[in-house]
Order: sequence, then structure tokens, then C-alpha cells
Amino acid sequence: MPASDARLGSPRRLAILAEGAFGEVASKTAIGVVRYGRDPVVAVIDSTRAGRNVSEWLGDRFDIPVVGSVHEALAHRPTAILIGIAPPGGRLPSSWRRTVLEATGAGLDVLSGLHAFLGEDPEFAAAARAKGTAIVDYRRPPERMEVATGRDHAPGRHVVLTVGTDCAIGKMTVTLELRRSAVEAGLSAAFVPTGQTGMMIEGWGAAVDRVVADFVQGTVEWLVEQAEEQAEWIFVEGQGSLDHPAYSSVTLGLIHGARPQQMILVHEPGREFHHGWEGRSRLKPLPEHIRAHEQVAALVAPAVVAGVALNTSQLPEGEARAMLARVEAETGLVTDDPVRYGGERLLDALRADGG
Amino acid sequence: MPASDARLGSPRRLAILAEGAFGEVASKTAIGVVRYGRDPVVAVIDSTRAGRNVSEWLGDRFDIPVVGSVHEALAHRPTAILIGIAPPGGRLPSSWRRTVLEATGAGLDVLSGLHAFLGEDPEFAAAARAKGTAIVDYRRPPERMEVATGRDHAPGRHVVLTVGTDCAIGKMTVTLELRRSAVEAGLSAAFVPTGQTGMMIEGWGAAVDRVVADFVQGTVEWLVEQAEEQAEWIFVEGQGSLDHPAYSSVTLGLIHGARPQQMILVHEPGREFHHGWEGRSRLKPLPEHIRAHEQVAALVAPAVVAGVALNTSQLPEGEARAMLARVEAETGLVTDDPVRYGGERLLDALRADGG
Repeated sequence: MPASDARLGSPRRLAILAEGAFGEVASKTAIGVVRYGRDPVVAVIDSTRAGRNVSEWLGDRFDIPVVGSVHEALAHRPTAILIGIAPPGGRLPSSWRRTVLEATGAGLDVLSGLHAFLGEDPEFAAAARAKGTAIVDYRRPPERMEVATGRDHAPGRHVVLTVGTDCAIGKMTVTLELRRSAVEAGLSAAFVPTGQTGMMIEGWGAAVDRVVADFVQGTVEWLVEQAEEQAEWIFVEGQGSLDHPAYSSVTLGLIHGARPQQMILVHEPGREFHHGWEGRSRLKPLPEHIRAHEQVAALVAPAVVAGVALNTSQLPEGEARAMLARVEAETGLVTDDPVRYGGERLLDALRADGG
Repeated sequence: MPASDARLGSPRRLAILAEGAFGEVASKTAIGVVRYGRDPVVAVIDSTRAGRNVSEWLGDRFDIPVVGSVHEALAHRPTAILIGIAPPGGRLPSSWRRTVLEATGAGLDVLSGLHAFLGEDPEFAAAARAKGTAIVDYRRPPERMEVATGRDHAPGRHVVLTVGTDCAIGKMTVTLELRRSAVEAGLSAAFVPTGQTGMMIEGWGAAVDRVVADFVQGTVEWLVEQAEEQAEWIFVEGQGSLDHPAYSSVTLGLIHGARPQQMILVHEPGREFHHGWEGRSRLKPLPEHIRAHEQVAALVAPAVVAGVALNTSQLPEGEARAMLARVEAETGLVTDDPVRYGGERLLDALRADGG
């Protein structure tokens, strides 16, 4: 997978595999591609929710049927199946093998962001060769392997990184909403995908958690450099969290590699423990978490947390507004839910602080 | 390269390539293997220092000739050539190709810790096949790819991690000296190699900077688990530094993956900037650096910096003693140079604090 995913010919029509999980945290890739991707999604495959419609979860804009199998999805004429679930560790559950082979057998390309590269699986590779279809492994690291050089940002560039209190908490979504608000405000803005879902949506980038550890900062550095050639406001997708027992090093690599001037902290009210570490790894209070980010960033280059993005999707309207006000008072920072209410206030906070 | 490097048959006799750099920071692999390795070193190859002797740099214990070429080294009957220099980025300078081919042609195995795997170079691989020799790439990541699980240490285990103000400042050396002191004190002690030089010395471990970023903490976790099965005192070799613009994420992965109860901070008096970043990335004052490590460790699990190890090799005796006293006053921590004066005082500090 090169850094750029050139799309030739007609757009792809996607069937997204989200077996057993659509709407849950485990299906964040599926939801992200449905909500923000440029390729039309014609069906979601989840036999436990077959017969329902994506609009039940994501609103009327997304009239997409949920079907029970690849076979049923074919009625909607997909050209590719996209693996929309990312199990911990990134390996393909054995029960999905048949699904992938069925899709390939039906002539569909296979798009995957799993750690285990499907294109290197002999059975999948042979099946794809026989059908003349493609297997795209978005997590395949770029060939460019470089340690960071400490480049300065180009003059007039604003680099904003999303950070979070946990993984799978909405950093990519917030980053995309901020870029959207910036474009709508007439700014020149770019989104830097640092994970497989962002790459599927945007068509370039690198999955930095799959890069050799020594090259994480270097990879982030040249991704940001490429974005700076295109735009003045650079919104870098964050990964993991600085206090996550398994993923903190990737988070730090993004902070020190991107050298943002500003960070936006993403949080979901009510989440007490790190995802998958319930009862063991407790989230820090927001002010403490914000201070830790600014201290750790300053070890290499100063950066401020300029605002807080809350995922209030689990709260009714009144409670959501009250929660935003409460967190704004607690942190002293502009706090909003950019998916629910738009990213304008957070963008204004960034412009007021760093613009 | 498996985690364990089983040594069959007679010990290897090493010729170490340190062309143009023996005695300098760039030759730290060569020096580490000479000083601590279990295989006899019969010659060092450095044409710019040919005719000299390793004892001029490392003391009378190390009576090893420096020669000008592979051809000259052959007179000392080596069985393997070990690449003793690690250029930034890990690639093989093109001028060394001839040297590697000459060594293979003479029937020597090739031992390398470079990022670029020599065994995957078609010309080297063909030459080794033709001669029936081996190419060992120590940096090849282990097949075991796991995210951290947050395992608790076994009861009664003391896990100590070396951290530093910079890379290439002596963390591995200090770790080995602490292990030596612990063994001499009758403790059950193990050294956990986390870099290629440590692996060459110890015969197991993993080069964590070459692991996929998502698996750094997980890899460190199972390395420590293996050591805990062998010993009560676990000395984990640190990498990079927490404020290094390129390598900080690997350092953090070691801190959060090893979950040490104690850290020893390694520093070289007089070093003002990060190695290779002169004039750009300035080292922090020691108290600030110590505080940063304790804060960052505590994001996942609490750990204290229990002592400071100084590399005083550039200072005459009186100045070295004065420097140790000065840093001890500045930090309030036991400070010593374990290479010069032994690791006993630092070990005592660890035992007093955490024993």
C-alpha cells in the first residue's frame, strides 16, 4: 500500500463486513467509512442485525440496508467488500475466512485494515488471482522508512493533533469534523490519516501503529510535510491515548512526530476505564490528562490543548448541553460535540489561540 | 531471529567491523560486544586506526589488535564478522558491501544488527549460500506479535529499567554492570536485552525499535515475563530517551511495557544536545528529566528514579568524583559511575528503596 491510494476508473461500491458488531465500538471502521467515505456503501453485512437499516444508528442520511450474508449483499451490486471490524491484535477471526472467500469468489475486491495482511494469505491470494480481483491491505506500512529529522513547519501552517482519553473514542471523527468546519469557513485545510480507517476514507496516509517503532515519528513527520504542501490548516488524526497501557507509545510518536502547535482532547463522558481494560486501567480526570499532554509535548516542542471534543451521542439533548457546560467549567477550555453540533466553536478556539 | 539465539558447537571467534569509528559513539555496538560479550573477539577492523590495540581505549584486559582489512583479520582466525557500527537509520553504507562480501568469501558468518536485513540482500544471501555460511540479522523482529495485556509482575520480582538523557549514552552498559553487581551480591538477577547489541552479548531478547509500533509494549512485557521466570531482580535495558525527537516513543513503550518499579537515569556530564541533534535538541536539567519520567510512568504504573548513573569516562579522577558529588546534591539521589567504580552503590540504592 503506497501512501497514496490512486483511484482509477469508476468509484467503488462497498459492502462492509461488520458481523456481530454494527453500531458497537468494535465496528468503528464500518461506521467511519459509512459516515465519511467517498465511495458509496451499498450494504452492511451483519447477520445479527439483518433486516435493519443503517439509518437507525446514523440518521436518515444513511439509508443503507443491513444484510445477513455476502450472498444477500450481492443484490446491491457491490464491487468490493471492506472489513469493517478491527479485532484486538488485528487478526482475522477464523469464522470470517469463508466470508472473504465467498466475496472473492463473487468477484469482489477485498479491502482490509487488519494487522494480518490478507494479501499474504496463500488461500486468499490464490482465490483473488483466479478471479482477477484485488486485495488491498491498508495497514501495510509505507516503503519510506525514516527516522524523524525535526523539520520545522512551513511558515503560516497550523498543525492540530487530536488526542484522547482512550482509543476508539472518536479522534478520527473529530478530526474530520474539524477539517470540514475549516473548509466551510473558507480555510485551506487538510486531514492527515494515521490509521487504516482514515486511509480508507481519504485515500492516502499511513497506519502508524503498523510502522516499525523507530520510524513512527519520522513517518508522521513526512505525512505532515505532505499535508503542508497542500493546505495551511493541518488536522492530524490521533491514535490511542497517552496513558493507555498498550498504545501510549504510538500516541507519543504522533505528538513528537507531528509537533502540533495545538491539540484537541477527545473524550466520551461516562467512560471510566480504557476500552478492553475495564476494572483495570482507569481514565484520568480531564484537567490532569490535559496537563500531562502539554508536559509531554513540551519535552520536544511546546503545544497547548486548545479545546475539548466530547462524544455525547449516548446523552439526550438536555444532558448533552449540561455536560458540555460542565466540562467547559472543569477545564476552562471551549468544549463541544462537533459531530452533534458542528466543529465551528472548536475551530474558533483554535483560531483565537493559534491563528 | 528467534528470541533465543541457541549457540551450538564451539564458541564463535569474532572480527568486529568498526571502520572509521572505533572508540567513538558510532561504534557502541563494537565496544559493547568487546567489553561484555561471551564470544572471544580476535580483531577489530578499522583502517583509520590499524596497528593500534583495543587496550588503548578499554584498558589492559582487552588486548585485541586493530587491523586494516578483513584480509588482515583472517590471520587471527575469526569464524564470524560482526557489524559493530550502527549508522542512523540502520542502512549499510555502500562502501561496506565489499567488506561483507570479502568476509563471506573467506568463509565467515556475518552478524548484523542493522535495520536493513543483510540476509535479505540477494547478493549477500547468494554468497553465503555458496559458502555455506550464516547471516544473522539480530534486529529481525520476533514472530510473537502481541499487544500488551497489563500482566502483573510475579511476586517478589524487582523490575529495574535504565532510562537516559539521550540515546547512545550508556544505558546498556549500566544495565549490564547492575546485573553484574547483583550477581556478585548473591542475588538472582537477569538482564533483558532490548537492542541488537544486548542480544549479541546475551544471546536472547528483541530489538524493540524494530518491532511493529503497536506491539512494543507487548514485546517488552513478554521479555520481562521470561526474565521473571529465571530471576528475582530483572534489569531491563533502556532505549532512546523520553525527550528525544525521534526515539521517545520507543522509550515510552519500554516504560509502559516493562512497568518497572524503579528506574536508573543514565547521563553523560557535558553532553548538552541529543546525539546527532547538536544545536537543536537540548538536554533537560536532571531534576526536570527525573520528574518527567516519574510522571510519565505513573500514567500507567508508578515508578521512581532510584539513582543516577554517570558516564564519567571523559573526566580525570578528581573531576569525576566531584561531578558525582555535584549530581548527587543536585538530584538528591545516589549517583555513581558503575563502569568506573562498580555498581554496588546503585544496587544498594535500589535495594534500600524497593527491596
